[in-house]
Amino acid sequence: MKKIVLIVLISCVLGIFKTSAQQHIHPDKAAIKGVLQQQVFAWNQRNIEGFMKYYWNSPDLRFISKKGITYGWEQIKNNYLKSYPTDTSMGSLSFEINSIDLLSKTDALVVGAWKIKKDNSETGGYFTLHFKKIKKVWFIVMDHTS
Amino acid sequence: MKKIVLIVLISCVLGIFKTSAQQHIHPDKAAIKGVLQQQVFAWNQRNIEGFMKYYWNSPDLRFISKKGITYGWEQIKNNYLKSYPTDTSMGSLSFEINSIDLLSKTDALVVGAWKIKKDNSETGGYFTLHFKKIKKVWFIVMDHTS
Repeated sequence: MKKIVLIVLISCVLGIFKTSAQQHIHPDKAAIKGVLQQQVFAWNQRNIEGFMKYYWNSPDLRFISKKGITYGWEQIKNNYLKSYPTDTSMGSLSFEINSIDLLSKTDALVVGAWKIKKDNSETGGYFTLHFKKIKKVWFIVMDHTS
Repeated sequence: MKKIVLIVLISCVLGIFKTSAQQHIHPDKAAIKGVLQQQVFAWNQRNIEGFMKYYWNSPDLRFISKKGITYGWEQIKNNYLKSYPTDTSMGSLSFEINSIDLLSKTDALVVGAWKIKKDNSETGGYFTLHFKKIKKVWFIVMDHTS
């Protein structure tokens, strides 16, 4: 009987801890994490249009790499389509988030690593993303990927 | 006489425009521009210690490149010293600022291009910098350079 009470007590305490830990995730951070998860999901479904849904649909959207700065949602989408023309070329994408910093009520900075695994190769690098909350939805307005 | 009046008038108008344009620069943006100018100046004086003065002196300072994330002021300074061991290797540095976005009273995001010209070569790329105002002074707390 004592054992059962103990087990029930431990379960309750663990339950409380779990709830408390869940409550610690700021809703905006959770939303941004959700966006990145959705992007990975869309990519791995070979759905670049879906992947692009989380980028700000504006001519002022910026994608920065060693090669230069690309402006505009359309152009950036076209670059993805050109760089990854086939299902095989898209491989399997994964993100590892290093940090999500909420800098204002409508601005966040995300640092992370990306990896694309293919049958015989693996490529990857790092990204810094400026997220902006526009009409209550978080969008990537600047993506620096190296 | 008419000519003189015209010249005086034009000068006044140009003067007003100049003043008006100067007033448009936000003091925080001007301060950040100043930091970047000071960095270029220090670099071209072969003064890496001076260049590093504008980075947050903290173990939490981050430098991100395709290779990975480096933490800490000391480590990042040592990497610069290792990568640019001689005056010649440092070449002539220049920055071209693409944007300075003030995201909060204490946070700014800077996008720009960097170039190092040597006698027979030129290297370069892009950077995104997260600046934080700490005790009224703007410091780089995250540098993603590609």
